[in-house]
Amino acid sequence: VHLTELRTPAVLVDAGRVAANITRMQALAGSNGRALRPHVKTHKSPVLARWQLEAGAHGICCAKPGEAEVFADAGFDDVRLAYPVRPEHAPRILSLLDRGVRVSLAVDRPDVVAAWSAAMRAARHRLDVLVKVDVGFHRCGVDPHDPELPAWLVALASMPGLRLTGLISHAGHAYRARSADALAAVADEEARLLHDVAAAARNRGVALGEISVGATPTARYSAAMPGITELRPGNYVYFDRTQVALGAATLDDCALTVLATVVTAHEGRIILDAGSKVLSSDRATGYLTTGIDSRGARAERPPDGVLEGYGAIFADAESPLVIDETLCIERLSEEHATVRVVGTTALRPGDRVRILPNHSCVVANLVDSVSLIDGTAVVERLPVAARGRCD
Amino acid sequence: VHLTELRTPAVLVDAGRVAANITRMQALAGSNGRALRPHVKTHKSPVLARWQLEAGAHGICCAKPGEAEVFADAGFDDVRLAYPVRPEHAPRILSLLDRGVRVSLAVDRPDVVAAWSAAMRAARHRLDVLVKVDVGFHRCGVDPHDPELPAWLVALASMPGLRLTGLISHAGHAYRARSADALAAVADEEARLLHDVAAAARNRGVALGEISVGATPTARYSAAMPGITELRPGNYVYFDRTQVALGAATLDDCALTVLATVVTAHEGRIILDAGSKVLSSDRATGYLTTGIDSRGARAERPPDGVLEGYGAIFADAESPLVIDETLCIERLSEEHATVRVVGTTALRPGDRVRILPNHSCVVANLVDSVSLIDGTAVVERLPVAARGRCD
Repeated sequence: VHLTELRTPAVLVDAGRVAANITRMQALAGSNGRALRPHVKTHKSPVLARWQLEAGAHGICCAKPGEAEVFADAGFDDVRLAYPVRPEHAPRILSLLDRGVRVSLAVDRPDVVAAWSAAMRAARHRLDVLVKVDVGFHRCGVDPHDPELPAWLVALASMPGLRLTGLISHAGHAYRARSADALAAVADEEARLLHDVAAAARNRGVALGEISVGATPTARYSAAMPGITELRPGNYVYFDRTQVALGAATLDDCALTVLATVVTAHEGRIILDAGSKVLSSDRATGYLTTGIDSRGARAERPPDGVLEGYGAIFADAESPLVIDETLCIERLSEEHATVRVVGTTALRPGDRVRILPNHSCVVANLVDSVSLIDGTAVVERLPVAARGRCD
Repeated sequence: VHLTELRTPAVLVDAGRVAANITRMQALAGSNGRALRPHVKTHKSPVLARWQLEAGAHGICCAKPGEAEVFADAGFDDVRLAYPVRPEHAPRILSLLDRGVRVSLAVDRPDVVAAWSAAMRAARHRLDVLVKVDVGFHRCGVDPHDPELPAWLVALASMPGLRLTGLISHAGHAYRARSADALAAVADEEARLLHDVAAAARNRGVALGEISVGATPTARYSAAMPGITELRPGNYVYFDRTQVALGAATLDDCALTVLATVVTAHEGRIILDAGSKVLSSDRATGYLTTGIDSRGARAERPPDGVLEGYGAIFADAESPLVIDETLCIERLSEEHATVRVVGTTALRPGDRVRILPNHSCVVANLVDSVSLIDGTAVVERLPVAARGRCD
């Protein structure tokens, strides 16, 4: 099947680009002596997770138990939940442990840790936990400057039913960085904070074997930093417009695109058959290195750091290498994109376009399957097996 | 099962509120002598569409053929596609016609109409078409002021394989209205434009029996306007924060909510287990009648007309009637919501909250099923059968 025979909108995944992205990230981790544990929330596909393991990844990372269950069903036996999973989910975690899955999870609260300890002790299981450290994103995690933290780590290390294996962090604020230097500074600060917490624990006799960090844009900096043992990037398997804007990928690294059809055209605008139900409404953020604004073609500018529009459109639908900067997806309805045309466009109703979404992780989560392609040939349908497993 | 026993995040649909919304909209249409043809893109549920038909709706409206196929499989035999479906989809439409489904669709281009005519003639079928008129949203539709439009309608009325049944419009710009008067003006202008096009056609001997308008916020105005024959609202079945902001619904009309759990808490912020993968990133728009900004509690204001945050949080998770205006969902990650707390909150990790999403249509599309509830009792799981059918 050729690309042009697909019904639109269709989410496409370029198999060659995915393979190259997996190889490159594995080489980055391996050459620096770090373990790679990809976050599978991006593709939610056991097939692609298998590719990652075959390339050398030592396990997978999931967000919620629902994702872990899908991957356990597919035979994955080493799953890290980089989420402060609430103890109400203990029966589900115990069920995974009973099936022989090695589960580890992030914790950041004494009350939650106590509940996990009790649940594991009652079931005569032992659960690996990593303490989630807030390295600046201010979402979850313990405050690394909290003077009571070292004592808590000592207490945690001897709690029944648990095995404290290390520290875990996510530098989500990297997505607000405005330059490569700022990105490097985020990774540097993260490594320093984790080092300091680990050193304080070590001084009290608690060895933390694992120092796990995860975020695609900081991976290339974190890989070389002393003390880091594990990288958990997820988005790198597909990349997207945000990663390009952050300088973490080039356009020809981007593996996930959306194929759409022009349904109607008017003076100054064209309408596509792809709306927020396939592209999502993610504006995403990043410093602007692409887009119409860099050409000064528009009077108003989007808020600083917000990528203009809901995706970028490639100049050639069959060869997604160059963005057409005269097209801006300025509005999404549920099933339409309204594209502003700066000047004129050769696009006519019936023509196909390839869209680079702002955020690939949420696009994959909107469809039951993606089309795996090789150039312009459709190779197979790839189920997004854990799609919608947000619990 | 009680609400508190559900895993979170969970999308809840209050059965009583849905029933009341269906009854009220049907009464509005019926008392004004209009037909009601609900757009099912909001719930994507054959069960709820059946409720709508039983209340008096005379058919359903879908966006894409993919939605129509799901509803045809469920036994629905009168489906209107309010979308300028491209003729590449002719085999799918013919398959629906072959199965006895009465299909009608929107057209807005001569080249597309010619292709549909040829496809239908070749298959010895006749397809009902309605001309889509751009009444101010500037997405799809013919320009009602185009001097060539009447002649085109005459030509269309005699094209083989087609039956021109009327005009169809969607006043999507109603969502940018800033007052009830502005909403009424949008509905008024829409009715006037459609009337003028229909009158010009009548003067040339073309009778347009159907004048179909569709948008939840304008429905109460359009219902009473002369000439309108059909209302096609969709969102009214659930409503959402945007409709409340527009004055089209009250909080106790809102039937779809998201149940979430507080996973961690810090000074000035709490984190919920519901992110963009269940709430969507829709900022939606509407004039601000609710939210923190109306209390002046914040220095920066969101862009005019954009609802602050990614949803509103009810003060009582078991009785969703009043919004807690001290809580603002200011950031969504894929699986977390970061909630800013103005002052203090009694919410603690493990507590449940009920969220009113900005846009219910896209939330329902993120999950395979919703939980139908009666107060705090979970009645059944309702499959979102056409979820993800964006093609």
